[in-house]
Amino acid sequence: MANALRLGVAGLGTVGASVIRLLSQHGDALARKNGRAAKVVAVSARDPNRDRGVDVSGLTWFTDPVALANSDEIDVFVELIGGDSGPAEDSVRAALSAGKHVVTANKALLAKHGVELAALAELNRVSLNYEAAVAGGIPIVKTLRESLSGNAVNRIYGIMNGTCNYILTRMERDGISFEDCLADAQRLGYAEADPSFDIEGNDTAHKLAILTSLAFGTKISADDVYLEGITSITTADIQAADELGYRIKLLGVAQRTDTGIEQRVHPTMVPKHSAIAQVDGVLNAVAVDGDFVGSLVLVGPGAGGDATASSVVSDIADLARGCRTNVLGMPADELADYTRAQMRRHEGGYYIRFSVHDRPGAFAEIAKAMGNKAISLQSIVQRARAKVAATDLQSVILITHETTEVAVREALDEIAASGVISGVPQMIRIEKLN
Amino acid sequence: MANALRLGVAGLGTVGASVIRLLSQHGDALARKNGRAAKVVAVSARDPNRDRGVDVSGLTWFTDPVALANSDEIDVFVELIGGDSGPAEDSVRAALSAGKHVVTANKALLAKHGVELAALAELNRVSLNYEAAVAGGIPIVKTLRESLSGNAVNRIYGIMNGTCNYILTRMERDGISFEDCLADAQRLGYAEADPSFDIEGNDTAHKLAILTSLAFGTKISADDVYLEGITSITTADIQAADELGYRIKLLGVAQRTDTGIEQRVHPTMVPKHSAIAQVDGVLNAVAVDGDFVGSLVLVGPGAGGDATASSVVSDIADLARGCRTNVLGMPADELADYTRAQMRRHEGGYYIRFSVHDRPGAFAEIAKAMGNKAISLQSIVQRARAKVAATDLQSVILITHETTEVAVREALDEIAASGVISGVPQMIRIEKLN
Repeated sequence: MANALRLGVAGLGTVGASVIRLLSQHGDALARKNGRAAKVVAVSARDPNRDRGVDVSGLTWFTDPVALANSDEIDVFVELIGGDSGPAEDSVRAALSAGKHVVTANKALLAKHGVELAALAELNRVSLNYEAAVAGGIPIVKTLRESLSGNAVNRIYGIMNGTCNYILTRMERDGISFEDCLADAQRLGYAEADPSFDIEGNDTAHKLAILTSLAFGTKISADDVYLEGITSITTADIQAADELGYRIKLLGVAQRTDTGIEQRVHPTMVPKHSAIAQVDGVLNAVAVDGDFVGSLVLVGPGAGGDATASSVVSDIADLARGCRTNVLGMPADELADYTRAQMRRHEGGYYIRFSVHDRPGAFAEIAKAMGNKAISLQSIVQRARAKVAATDLQSVILITHETTEVAVREALDEIAASGVISGVPQMIRIEKLN
Repeated sequence: MANALRLGVAGLGTVGASVIRLLSQHGDALARKNGRAAKVVAVSARDPNRDRGVDVSGLTWFTDPVALANSDEIDVFVELIGGDSGPAEDSVRAALSAGKHVVTANKALLAKHGVELAALAELNRVSLNYEAAVAGGIPIVKTLRESLSGNAVNRIYGIMNGTCNYILTRMERDGISFEDCLADAQRLGYAEADPSFDIEGNDTAHKLAILTSLAFGTKISADDVYLEGITSITTADIQAADELGYRIKLLGVAQRTDTGIEQRVHPTMVPKHSAIAQVDGVLNAVAVDGDFVGSLVLVGPGAGGDATASSVVSDIADLARGCRTNVLGMPADELADYTRAQMRRHEGGYYIRFSVHDRPGAFAEIAKAMGNKAISLQSIVQRARAKVAATDLQSVILITHETTEVAVREALDEIAASGVISGVPQMIRIEKLN
C-alpha cells in the first residue's frame, strides 16, 4: 500500500471533530477500499486545551492555519474554518499555491472566490473538493460533476437551508406564526442568534450559485441571485396553499431560459405530491432535471457534524484513490460567462393574496386588471371566514395560469392604484414540477 | 489532450442507441470536462441493417461480441447485451482478460458472477463499472462506492422495479385489481409478456444483492435473498393500508442484524409520509442509512434508454478521467463471506388480514393465539362492510407492534388450526422508517 495520505485539519468545531472521529472509527476500512490510508497528522485551531471529544494528542498543533497549509507535513489541507475571507481564504490560497490538495466545507468562500480558486488549483495541478459545502451529507457535487456529466441540465432546484425548512414545516404542522417558529428554532439550535443570513435566503443563494456553475458550466455569480426570504410568509398563506394542493418551501432554483440562466431563491408553492414537498424539518433536498437522466432527486441531511463529515471524508477518499475532477466540472478557464435572466421575464404560475375592501365592484377591479395583462386565472378563493376582524377587509386568493413576472407586477400596481385593496399583496411563485 | 478513449459497444438495443446518441450530442462537452474524449469506434449487434435511429456508419461492425471484446481497436468494452451467461458473460470475461475496461448495465450477470468478475478485473488492473445495472439513472453505485465510503451502512432499501411500482400505484389510485393493472402495464410496455421475473421480485433481488455487497463489504449472494412478489396483494390490502396511514411498496431491503445480514424482497407497508412512500409509477428510489450520514434517499428513473445511458456514460467518464475504484468497494479478495440472517428471526411490525367466520368466540381465538406468542396489537380493524358476500366471513385486520417473524408464523398456524378463519391469512411486513 502507498504511503498514507497526510491530512491537516484547520478548524476543530463540530465538523472537524466529526471528521477526526470518522477517520478513527472507519479509517481501516477506508484504507482497504482506497488502497491508501488517510491520516490526520496536524491540526489548527485556536485553543489546544478545549475538550472536543476526540483525541488530538500526537498531532502537530498549529495556531496559524496558513502555517499548517504551508507545512511539509501534509498532503491535503482540510479547511473547516468558514467565512469568505480572512484565515479561511488565506490558508486555502496558501495550500493550493503550495501544491497541496484542498478539501473544504466552505460555501461562502466558494460562492465568492470559487472560479479564482479553481483556476489556482488547476494551475498547481491539485484538487479542490467541496462536497460538504452544498447540502451537507447529500452528495450533490459528485452527482453533478461526475454522475450527470453526460447531461445538459435544464434546471436544478432544492431545499438547501434547514432553518427555513424547519420553520415552514412547523408553521404548517402546528399552525404557529413565523416569529414563534423562529424563536423555537433558535432555542433548539437550528437558527443562529442573528438568523437573517438563513431566513433572508443568502445561505441558500451561496449554495445555489455553486450548483449553477456545476450544472451549466458558467462562472459562479452569487451576486446575481434574485433573493426573497421567508419572513413575509403567514399561516394564512400556508393554510391556503394546503387547501389548494400545495406546500410552501424556500427553494433555490437555477434554470436555463431563452435569455440566460435564472438564479432565484424565494418561497415557492410546490405541488403536495411532488418529492420535494415531502421534505420536512431540517432535511435538505436537491433535484436535477437533465436531458438524458430526466428528474433525479436527492434527499438527506443538509447539516450536522457527522453528515457533513461523511461528505468531507468522501472528498478525502477521492484523493486517496488518486481521482481528480475539474473543480467546477469544466476547466476554470473554459467556464462561460454567466448571463443573468431578468426576473421580470420569469414565467410561471402565481399565488396572490389580497386584502380587499368589501365594496361592490372591488373584485371586478381586480379581475379587470388581471385581464388587461392577459393573465388567466386557475382558481379564485374568497371566503366569509377570511374576513379580517374589525375591518371591512376580506382575503381574496388568486392562482394564475402560467404568465410572466412583469405582467403580474403591472397588474398588482394597477390594482393597488385602484384603491380596492389594503396593504401590499402577497405574491408567491408556483414551481412547475413533474 | 490525451488520445481518445476508444469504446466498443456490444448490444444496440434501446440503451445502446441512447449511449451513441448521448455521446454524439454531448461528446464535446464531456471531452472538455474529462480532459479526454471518449469515442465509439466499434459496435457489435446481430443485424447491421436495422434502423436504430443513430448513425453507426464509420464504425467497425462485429457480429461476435467476443471478437469485439478482444479487438485491439478498443480500450473499453461496453456490454449492453444482457443475460447472466452466453455472449454477455463470454465477452465480459474476454474483455477483462484482455486488459480492457468494462462498462455494463447487466444486473443479472453481476448478481451471478460479480465477485469472480471483480477479481478478474482487479487481476488485470482494469475497471468494471456498472452504474446502470442498479436503478437505471439513479447514481446509487457511485454513491455507495464513493460518496458514502466513510460510513458503516446499517440498512439499504429501495423500490427497484418500475413494473411492480407502476402496478401498485395504479391499484391504489384507480382501485383496480392486480390482474387488470398487469394487463395495462403489458399494453404500455412497462411489463414483459412473461412478467414473472418482475412481479415475483427476482429482478429486485438481483439489484439488491449487488447493493448488499457494496453496502456491507460482503460477497454477492443473490440466492440468499428472501423473496415474496406482489401477486397476492389485493385492493382490499391497499385500501386498508391507506386507512391505517401506510402505502404498500415492493421493497428490497438489506439490513445488518445480530445474526447476519437480512436480504429480503417483499411487499412492504411504509408510512405514508416517508420519502419512499411518495415514489409513484415507474420511478425508482434507493435509501441508505449510514452511521455518519444518517438517511439519504435518491429518487429517479429506474429504466429507459436515455436515463440508463446517462449512467453508462458516467462510468465511461470515470475511465476517461483515469478514476478507478474497486469493483465492489472492497478489493474482491477482501470481501467477507455473506452470512444470511434467517427470516424467522426478522423483527418488525406486521399487517395481518384474516377472513374470519362470523361466530361467537372467533375473535377471542385470534386474540388468544397472538397473546400466546406475546404479540401485542397496535390496531384492530373489523368492519361490517368488510363482510364477504354470500358467506359468513368477515375481514379482520391486525397491525402488530414489533415482534418476530417466527412468533407471527406460529400464531397464524395456531389460528388456522382453530378453524375460525378461512383460507390463508394475508401477511405484509411493516418497515420502520424515520
